[in-house]
Amino acid sequence: MGEHGTGEKVRIAIVGSTGYGGVELIRLLQGHPKAVITSVISSSSAGTPISEGFPHLTDIIVQNLDGTDPKEIAAKADVVFTATPSGVSSKLVPGLLEEGLKVIDLSGDFRIKDGATYEKWYKHTAPDAAYLEEAVFGLCELFGEEVAGKDFISNPGCYPTATLLGLVPAISAGWINPNSIIIDAKSGVSGSGRGTSLTTHFAEINENFKAYKVNKHQHIPEIEQVLSQVAGEQVTVTFTTQLVPMTRGIMSTMYANLNGVYNDEDFVELYRQYYQGRPFVRVRDTGIWPATKEVLGSNYCDIGFAADPRTGRVTIISVIDNIVKGAAGQAIQNLNLMMGWEENLGLGYTPVYP
Amino acid sequence: MGEHGTGEKVRIAIVGSTGYGGVELIRLLQGHPKAVITSVISSSSAGTPISEGFPHLTDIIVQNLDGTDPKEIAAKADVVFTATPSGVSSKLVPGLLEEGLKVIDLSGDFRIKDGATYEKWYKHTAPDAAYLEEAVFGLCELFGEEVAGKDFISNPGCYPTATLLGLVPAISAGWINPNSIIIDAKSGVSGSGRGTSLTTHFAEINENFKAYKVNKHQHIPEIEQVLSQVAGEQVTVTFTTQLVPMTRGIMSTMYANLNGVYNDEDFVELYRQYYQGRPFVRVRDTGIWPATKEVLGSNYCDIGFAADPRTGRVTIISVIDNIVKGAAGQAIQNLNLMMGWEENLGLGYTPVYP
Amino acid sequence: MGEHGTGEKVRIAIVGSTGYGGVELIRLLQGHPKAVITSVISSSSAGTPISEGFPHLTDIIVQNLDGTDPKEIAAKADVVFTATPSGVSSKLVPGLLEEGLKVIDLSGDFRIKDGATYEKWYKHTAPDAAYLEEAVFGLCELFGEEVAGKDFISNPGCYPTATLLGLVPAISAGWINPNSIIIDAKSGVSGSGRGTSLTTHFAEINENFKAYKVNKHQHIPEIEQVLSQVAGEQVTVTFTTQLVPMTRGIMSTMYANLNGVYNDEDFVELYRQYYQGRPFVRVRDTGIWPATKEVLGSNYCDIGFAADPRTGRVTIISVIDNIVKGAAGQAIQNLNLMMGWEENLGLGYTPVYP
Amino acid sequence: MGEHGTGEKVRIAIVGSTGYGGVELIRLLQGHPKAVITSVISSSSAGTPISEGFPHLTDIIVQNLDGTDPKEIAAKADVVFTATPSGVSSKLVPGLLEEGLKVIDLSGDFRIKDGATYEKWYKHTAPDAAYLEEAVFGLCELFGEEVAGKDFISNPGCYPTATLLGLVPAISAGWINPNSIIIDAKSGVSGSGRGTSLTTHFAEINENFKAYKVNKHQHIPEIEQVLSQVAGEQVTVTFTTQLVPMTRGIMSTMYANLNGVYNDEDFVELYRQYYQGRPFVRVRDTGIWPATKEVLGSNYCDIGFAADPRTGRVTIISVIDNIVKGAAGQAIQNLNLMMGWEENLGLGYTPVYP
Repeated sequence: MGEHGTGEKVRIAIVGSTGYGGVELIRLLQGHPKAVITSVISSSSAGTPISEGFPHLTDIIVQNLDGTDPKEIAAKADVVFTATPSGVSSKLVPGLLEEGLKVIDLSGDFRIKDGATYEKWYKHTAPDAAYLEEAVFGLCELFGEEVAGKDFISNPGCYPTATLLGLVPAISAGWINPNSIIIDAKSGVSGSGRGTSLTTHFAEINENFKAYKVNKHQHIPEIEQVLSQVAGEQVTVTFTTQLVPMTRGIMSTMYANLNGVYNDEDFVELYRQYYQGRPFVRVRDTGIWPATKEVLGSNYCDIGFAADPRTGRVTIISVIDNIVKGAAGQAIQNLNLMMGWEENLGLGYTPVYP
Repeated sequence: MGEHGTGEKVRIAIVGSTGYGGVELIRLLQGHPKAVITSVISSSSAGTPISEGFPHLTDIIVQNLDGTDPKEIAAKADVVFTATPSGVSSKLVPGLLEEGLKVIDLSGDFRIKDGATYEKWYKHTAPDAAYLEEAVFGLCELFGEEVAGKDFISNPGCYPTATLLGLVPAISAGWINPNSIIIDAKSGVSGSGRGTSLTTHFAEINENFKAYKVNKHQHIPEIEQVLSQVAGEQVTVTFTTQLVPMTRGIMSTMYANLNGVYNDEDFVELYRQYYQGRPFVRVRDTGIWPATKEVLGSNYCDIGFAADPRTGRVTIISVIDNIVKGAAGQAIQNLNLMMGWEENLGLGYTPVYP
Repeated sequence: MGEHGTGEKVRIAIVGSTGYGGVELIRLLQGHPKAVITSVISSSSAGTPISEGFPHLTDIIVQNLDGTDPKEIAAKADVVFTATPSGVSSKLVPGLLEEGLKVIDLSGDFRIKDGATYEKWYKHTAPDAAYLEEAVFGLCELFGEEVAGKDFISNPGCYPTATLLGLVPAISAGWINPNSIIIDAKSGVSGSGRGTSLTTHFAEINENFKAYKVNKHQHIPEIEQVLSQVAGEQVTVTFTTQLVPMTRGIMSTMYANLNGVYNDEDFVELYRQYYQGRPFVRVRDTGIWPATKEVLGSNYCDIGFAADPRTGRVTIISVIDNIVKGAAGQAIQNLNLMMGWEENLGLGYTPVYP
Repeated sequence: MGEHGTGEKVRIAIVGSTGYGGVELIRLLQGHPKAVITSVISSSSAGTPISEGFPHLTDIIVQNLDGTDPKEIAAKADVVFTATPSGVSSKLVPGLLEEGLKVIDLSGDFRIKDGATYEKWYKHTAPDAAYLEEAVFGLCELFGEEVAGKDFISNPGCYPTATLLGLVPAISAGWINPNSIIIDAKSGVSGSGRGTSLTTHFAEINENFKAYKVNKHQHIPEIEQVLSQVAGEQVTVTFTTQLVPMTRGIMSTMYANLNGVYNDEDFVELYRQYYQGRPFVRVRDTGIWPATKEVLGSNYCDIGFAADPRTGRVTIISVIDNIVKGAAGQAIQNLNLMMGWEENLGLGYTPVYP
């Protein structure tokens, strides 16, 4: 599997290898110097070669897909990434933890600390409170220190990653009013997963721009949970999700009322200081707003600002690749932090441009 | 030219026939029962067949492009559409009006009533105040009655059309706070015109989503001028423009604080009443947000709502085809109103779907 | 339904109104001066408004979808378009004909005169030979005279339309060797219909170009049937189908060995003469090859040539909009011919560009 | 520059760093274990940071662009990649070679061994015959052994790479008639470079498929030169180039008459044997045709077959990423071969999917 031996490397299993998050974990981990994929797992396709469904992996991943039995996984791997739909991880993860596996969960099942809130937004039964308690919310630039040495990480959602990295420094500094926040978010279609529906039909999406789940997206409580924690008060946001006719990329355009007089340069300086030493956040110079393509295929989150004295508001623009920093890339970043390795190990991918 | 004779029809000249607004006027006017194109005009390509640059017009428009001499235009036409860049119309239109031609101007040169404001945002010298005074701002659903019988119409911008149709009823009704308005607007690339630059290069735009001119777009004063008039107070808006990797379509996503408790149904009812009898505004049922593709190629503006009791805000979503309702289609709607014809004459295009 | 009364107009029913062929028939027929849609039909969605699935038809088609009972259809309509999948029309059409309805069938079920050949390529049971006999193959520019006055037309496939219009004049003239023909065809995704599958998933198609059914596409026997008839000998073609990341459009790039020395101009002249008086075929000047966008939304078929003395071959390029000239538009053209109306009645759509 | 030190590494300069070939060299070389970029060069933008024009390189390449003086380049680098337009390299490369630099040229200037042929197709003055003689045509899988130890490599064109890898084994084996070859090639828009023109305007390309330079593309003599060499006779091909509305990717669909009876499996076996041990050619199983997305961002060339007993022809389909295997990736593969390193060093990029 791949060109790596398994010598001293940490052995990785990926559950959900036939989804977009799973195959992206495979792509990114091929270049990781301290980890090696030893099992690719799919409950629905176990026993068949992964290249049947993903011909781009021909000659790269040659072994067959495995099933989801925790004991079998434990026999092959040290760490498991669960790139499963919400409602599935909640049932699967406890068994994996019991086998002593380290788990990084990419579903949303363990992000919301309050079970009732989870159930309201996700329409699934919440996991046991003990697991919700144990799961560390792995937004690396904000909570990286909590991740180190832990066994169970809940990887953040794509929209929350772009949004929280864009808002937290300003809220921490007290520069913006947390209850004035409006988030206008846009995502490429890969965010909807590989399942087929009219929503992802090419002829319906191409040459089209549409909103969905306005004020109803399940990422809202995740954003509010962190913002409330940072602000020290209950924060409620307006949140719009929109589908862009492209495959990868999220832009979160955020609006807030300023608590004082700050210009673009103030924001650039504040954010550069906040993210000093963090390799994956790039704060743009004043007057330069990031575009999604400028992070495509990479683990970067790029941020730009427009503070407007005419209106007393700031516009903050944040972009990520939804499958990398918004999913598989950040999950590997969490692996690195969990294992005590350098944060950017195996993640030095330059954006694919054009 | 086309299949129509020129019998009793109003004769039309189109200046700027080699731009996207110009060729869309040609497309739409082919089907108009009371108007006939008698001259297609381009200062840069006069003397050559239009199908050289636009092969899709082969066998449809067979005469050569004419030049911009006002007297020659007046000899061939009754009404002129000037689909020229800003800064060009301001110089050209006075001569056309002097020749007794009726003019519908698609540039932005005559939209801003205050010359100084125009110069600040457009970076061109403003036209004489007399022309600014004379020009009727032809946002048909709001000012259609002022258009009737006039000789000189300033056709609204694409972003202002989508935005104002989405905001004015709520402001008129006093339901939203005019100074809380945030407009997150997105446009297809045709809005940038046919000029070549890195900004419109396929490889730079495809699989990309980017912001531009944040809080600096020249359509801001046009929006604020009308909103201030409707609100009866000075209104200042936050306005973001973003480029979608598609050719046609604008979505304006608008946010405002509610002045009272209103739900989605209230908004639907308010807007349906406001636009009663106007054939081109379609207010969607509650919980249904319009998508740009649902108006592509047509003169419709579709509007949907999400009033949110959690935040006390409303999200209003409005879509148009930027080249039709945002340019050529509304210009023909203005022709109809100007001439006292039915508003939707020759504009019965069903959206092209998919 | 629509703005038309039903005065003296021919009443139209559309079976398969929830597919792309069906909604395109609706779009195009809105502007037809002698036909009026009186029933939109869908076996799967009968009883619901069509705008539920196709919001772009809001306010345009306001009645509910009807069911497929032949007697009920006959009570409402004079002519039926059956825009149904292959295998469905073969069962439905006989009942419609028995009710005295005129039928234009857009499925492939009645195109192949030999039942065994149909069954080999389509994997469905062939219709009764009597119906295969009765059905006129409605490739209008080639067999238009046979269509006039008939009651049952089999509308050609999209690939065969583009391909046959591009090849027949040269074969008729004896300029190319019919058994040297290689057809490299490309289609937009709408050709796959509205059904959902991985094949039409946006993230799989976007930024991708792929071949499918190489030498196995069910349109091969349709092409060979006509070419053999024209050539007066059994013709066998090499035929590749490929998916382009766009919604609409087919390009057929065709290669053949020349039987003599002919240059581009010879071909242009031959084809212009062959298609003289046919409003929907546009033969391009030498050195100009048509692009799919130049016919988008219209009923045109544009053709260009590159005869190459170096190789003794000619390359013929033909483009259509697969849903218009390749389906709904040609079906209406057949309606016109069937009823003895002008061929282009209600079909004067200028291509949508850009 | 990047995270690498310059310890024992080969120092690389890239001329043409502001073109798509140049930035792709930068992306790919970031991960190379034995090479380090020490100078990025652009004649037009020398003195400015590369991230000004390519913000995706922010924090990745921080030094300014250098100029093209050969002595200055020689002071900084051991190997130069010249990713310059044709007509530019021919003037620049001799000076670089004189300074003792190793050169890998990505322009087409040194590919055609016969100066007159070059001038006919390229419309530039040919380089001195001595340089044409010296330049090794670096199609690695075919001529890799000639590259080893050389100082001056001419990197193949994108279309020729996909096409020749698809054709040569069958010609070598005598299975196909070399003078029956028809090549229907399709490319993403990045192949046209970053220069701005109507040809690359998003609104003109999106939702469009078009042919260009039919039988006139300058890659034709490059293809014929190699095929003639392999076949041992003068080979002339029919060659069509077409633009796909996507950024990256080439598919070459090739047709030829079979010299005997061979089925798909025969071809699969023949090609797998031919390319045994070559890491970047993947021959697909029978009945599976490769898609461009399956190699995107990687150095793979994937090949599939459809041998057709009905017609006695074979259809060969070959895909590459035009900027990787068709330009920068193969150039690095040539660097590896030139230096005697493993062929795939630093090129282990898994395709980016979706």
